[in-house]
Amino acid sequence: MEQQQIQARAIVRNIGQLVSVAQAPIAGASGLLQVLSNAAIMVDNDGNISWIGADQEVDEMLACSEQGHVNIVDAYGCVVTPGFVDSHTHLVFAGDRAEEFHLRREGTSYGELLRQGRGILTTMNATRHASSEMLLDLAMERLASVRAHGTTTVEIKTGYGLNLEAEERCLRIINDLNCSPSLPHEHVRIIPTFLGAHSVPPEYHGRRAAYVDLVVEEMLPAFAELARFCDVYCEREAFSVAESHRILTRAKELGYQLKVHADQLSPSGGSQLAAELGAVSADHLDYASDTDLEAMREAGVVATLLPGCSYTLRSPYPSARRLLDHGLKVALASDFNPGTSYSENMQMMLGLAMSAMGMSLDEALSAATINGARALALQDETGSIEIGKRCELALWSIRDYHEIGYHFGTNLIQSILVL
Amino acid sequence: MEQQQIQARAIVRNIGQLVSVAQAPIAGASGLLQVLSNAAIMVDNDGNISWIGADQEVDEMLACSEQGHVNIVDAYGCVVTPGFVDSHTHLVFAGDRAEEFHLRREGTSYGELLRQGRGILTTMNATRHASSEMLLDLAMERLASVRAHGTTTVEIKTGYGLNLEAEERCLRIINDLNCSPSLPHEHVRIIPTFLGAHSVPPEYHGRRAAYVDLVVEEMLPAFAELARFCDVYCEREAFSVAESHRILTRAKELGYQLKVHADQLSPSGGSQLAAELGAVSADHLDYASDTDLEAMREAGVVATLLPGCSYTLRSPYPSARRLLDHGLKVALASDFNPGTSYSENMQMMLGLAMSAMGMSLDEALSAATINGARALALQDETGSIEIGKRCELALWSIRDYHEIGYHFGTNLIQSILVL
Ligand SMILES: [Zn+2]
Ligand SMILES: [Zn+2]
Repeated sequence: MEQQQIQARAIVRNIGQLVSVAQAPIAGASGLLQVLSNAAIMVDNDGNISWIGADQEVDEMLACSEQGHVNIVDAYGCVVTPGFVDSHTHLVFAGDRAEEFHLRREGTSYGELLRQGRGILTTMNATRHASSEMLLDLAMERLASVRAHGTTTVEIKTGYGLNLEAEERCLRIINDLNCSPSLPHEHVRIIPTFLGAHSVPPEYHGRRAAYVDLVVEEMLPAFAELARFCDVYCEREAFSVAESHRILTRAKELGYQLKVHADQLSPSGGSQLAAELGAVSADHLDYASDTDLEAMREAGVVATLLPGCSYTLRSPYPSARRLLDHGLKVALASDFNPGTSYSENMQMMLGLAMSAMGMSLDEALSAATINGARALALQDETGSIEIGKRCELALWSIRDYHEIGYHFGTNLIQSILVL
Repeated sequence: MEQQQIQARAIVRNIGQLVSVAQAPIAGASGLLQVLSNAAIMVDNDGNISWIGADQEVDEMLACSEQGHVNIVDAYGCVVTPGFVDSHTHLVFAGDRAEEFHLRREGTSYGELLRQGRGILTTMNATRHASSEMLLDLAMERLASVRAHGTTTVEIKTGYGLNLEAEERCLRIINDLNCSPSLPHEHVRIIPTFLGAHSVPPEYHGRRAAYVDLVVEEMLPAFAELARFCDVYCEREAFSVAESHRILTRAKELGYQLKVHADQLSPSGGSQLAAELGAVSADHLDYASDTDLEAMREAGVVATLLPGCSYTLRSPYPSARRLLDHGLKVALASDFNPGTSYSENMQMMLGLAMSAMGMSLDEALSAATINGARALALQDETGSIEIGKRCELALWSIRDYHEIGYHFGTNLIQSILVL
């Protein structure tokens, strides 16, 4: 390199293995993921990755140039991947459903639990009655765990308020989380999603159309500045295809991007709807047919799998292999929620996807990073370590990324690193 | 209480929930586990539990008595269970098998890996060539993780040395681990098992009888003071029933207690052999028949399940329900080893047993504590919180034990507490 001033905010040095997908493949690397040993990353003053290369070149650069205030971060030889992009969570809620978990396991049906005022009603009541401070505190505690397990971007849905005031309050808390205190280099990016159509609240019992009206006519216009996505729980027990269609169409007009909880418990028609309306992702997909998957592929809908649900509900895991063979972009997410997947840890989701869904490590890691970013329409910003993208990394306390999935059940993340 | 001096080394106070099996049920408690809220535990000067009761009674005791040097430990309202008893691990080894893990997933058979010098041969070679310091360091690092995930007793097998010198070295390291540095209240008890009959080493290729001779005639007599148990890998690819019978019979004569790796990959006859010889436990049991299970039950052999293997090998999980319905005492263990279950975390095993093996929380927690102790013939010493037993506890960072299994994928253990 010629004499010049290094225009960088930070350099991450001494990366044992840099592991990421790359649209522009690194020379000599092969497979789905690019692996670069003894690497370094340079971050420019705007916080974008401006250079990726061999660590030893950094010595030369530093020797041949006047150094400004460049922050040098030592990765101590560890593995570095993009931070996880967890594209589907319900992280803001109050209330405890551990007892329900065990009742369900002992054979109580979900319908019966709802009749007892349990299930989502437990969470809705507790969330409505909790103070905003309490909700924020609970969410920040969970976010600390999310971060400690390697996630740098997390989508969070509303859907436990289920009235205008409570849904708005939750959306504001989700937005506030983006400013919640953390070390600057451990800042997790939050993407807010409005899921008013999660369940028909009890005060609308027998007049569900009126609740759909409320969502479409009042909530959607009121929240357009607060939420980036609109999601619908399209399922026999929740919202029909027609209701979902009406909600999502209006949302789209108002500038929301779309997501659908689709075909989880039955063939709900949700993934067809996602394809028809050009949703960014359709999530769950346990009962999606080949025709559904073809429609999704043609429409470019990301297929998001949520293995924590199958783990919790002890239902068969949908095959990731099948989705991949259909040519779909497959994302993995935690579905962190108090009913069916109470886990903040994306490593657990990778492990389950590799053990029970037929994914290889490379596929699972891509699904939890770049495809998670695709499921949030953030693939130009994050989800991989590439020039021009944000520097949002996971540092692993391992020497070889093949240990991921192999060494299971413990937290292999040392920290996240956001520059 | 009348005026008296408290004869105690320590009192654990402010236990939010004390959860344990108890042979002598606590009044008012029901179910497999006894749950006592706002409890306290007193430990006498010999380190045995001398009293269990309501925390408020401790105030009265302290008020009405002269206090000696009683160490008061505050549990800050958290859940306390017995520490996990992990009755089956292969924790002392060197070498890395992450690559093999992925090759197997891509379809390479284990036989093919062995022909390539991989599989157990990788571990055997690395273990034989590692210095004792290296082996001890690696084991201590793993033990720190074992401890951090809630285990207070861990069995460790040899079986990667496979010659007289290397097996002895590993046994000495396992024994040394009992004295490895840790905070006194975080001391993990180590139980050494001799597993010379893990695999026939390559230098005995074509003359396996000579290796069995070596085990029976030289190793077993030499190690009788170093190992508490003798174990055999009774499997088509390893040792026949006849070979296993010969080894275990001699071991029994020499004072070893017995264990068998039984019926994991095929109906090997291992669990019948365990019953016939009065083994303390038979482990794996994927292919055990109803007749086998009946024989085990009549002989009082503990049935040990190792869900980490099914998770790693992606083979069907054996049903814990079936074993329980046969009236067997079922233990859960990690089988921590570099080939088929690379995990130190017993919480993960509980989770898998609850998600994939049909166990309830109470059954899984009993299996990982008191039945783990039974699988090591330590049920009079540990595995439950009862008067006369050692005080070997797991402190959980949760308020209600029902969160175990429900909140998954993260480490819910705050620390272990050994007094
Ligand atoms: Zn969801
Ligand atoms: Zn084993």
